[in-house]
Amino acid sequence: MSILPDPIIKAIESLSDLPGIGSRSAERLVFSLLKNNSGLDQKISNNLKNLRRDIKECQTCFHFCEGEQCLICSDSKRDEKVLCVVESPLDLVALEKTSEFRGRYHVLHGVISPLNKVMPGDLRIIQLLERVKKDDKLEEIILATSGSTESDATAMFIAQSLEEFFKGKISRLSRGIPSGGDLDYLDIGTLSRAISERRDF
Amino acid sequence: MSILPDPIIKAIESLSDLPGIGSRSAERLVFSLLKNNSGLDQKISNNLKNLRRDIKECQTCFHFCEGEQCLICSDSKRDEKVLCVVESPLDLVALEKTSEFRGRYHVLHGVISPLNKVMPGDLRIIQLLERVKKDDKLEEIILATSGSTESDATAMFIAQSLEEFFKGKISRLSRGIPSGGDLDYLDIGTLSRAISERRDF
Repeated sequence: MSILPDPIIKAIESLSDLPGIGSRSAERLVFSLLKNNSGLDQKISNNLKNLRRDIKECQTCFHFCEGEQCLICSDSKRDEKVLCVVESPLDLVALEKTSEFRGRYHVLHGVISPLNKVMPGDLRIIQLLERVKKDDKLEEIILATSGSTESDATAMFIAQSLEEFFKGKISRLSRGIPSGGDLDYLDIGTLSRAISERRDF
Repeated sequence: MSILPDPIIKAIESLSDLPGIGSRSAERLVFSLLKNNSGLDQKISNNLKNLRRDIKECQTCFHFCEGEQCLICSDSKRDEKVLCVVESPLDLVALEKTSEFRGRYHVLHGVISPLNKVMPGDLRIIQLLERVKKDDKLEEIILATSGSTESDATAMFIAQSLEEFFKGKISRLSRGIPSGGDLDYLDIGTLSRAISERRDF
């Protein structure tokens, strides 16, 4: 790679540190920026420059926001009776896109993972428990964690902690075959959950 | 997407303007930058900020470089008798990685494409012809264009222009089956070229 000037190599190296972008893709991105006359390089540079400075975590739900409270927590039209616990802001965004849920959220920012040294204290679990304790309007908590074993274990841990004092309903997302999924391509785990959790027609 | 603060949306939008990065990938990249504490966002921002200001085209071969001449043109150990014409700096980098070629390069920065309004004058073809005219040490010119029809037409155009005054050899890359390629997965075009351009065993 010594045939490339240093600024190009540095740009390639930093972009290839992004998840899912290898050195080949980073190479292509940098060369496309060099050919692009629309100022995209400046736009990206400026938008990333202050990103982490400008973005904070909401003091209530820990979703990303600009001020003290996120756009969902400060929205009075949201249903105060249901709280949805998610692993990451990305999961929150995905759930919002479905328009199926009009309650509030709580973002954990990860899952319990002893192998990666992520313990309950590293997540926003204590804040969740305190929030639920203070909130007397709450009727249901949905533990909308992902399908992995670590996610299941995290949900289990939270459910047990909540059950000690929360008298409302604790639910989780349904498990089953994905929409448009072919049965013969599905893994055994998904398929056995789809049978054991079958619903009346 | 109104549930995300503005700086995040701006960052996602600018990253998704990059080729091959859709809005979903851009979302993931921005959220990973928000979680990343190693300063990667600043690194990327800084490396892109002055990239286009610092990078020029070599006055001889039009490869990207920092000063007047690129690292290859200023390398006196390079074979002056062979010139390899490539479409883009990316192709040059790919050829350099093979270590098969020790001559010099000329970068066209595109292919002739009337549909996209790219005419010979938009590429570095005139500069190539002038360069070859002035260079009396040159014995071979390799037209290392890609496999597309437009690339073939560009190579054809350059070959015809060169033949008017250049008395040395004009060559092109060989066509055939890729290394490790399965015959039954290959397209007909590649396979027919592989047969018609077959070599003695």
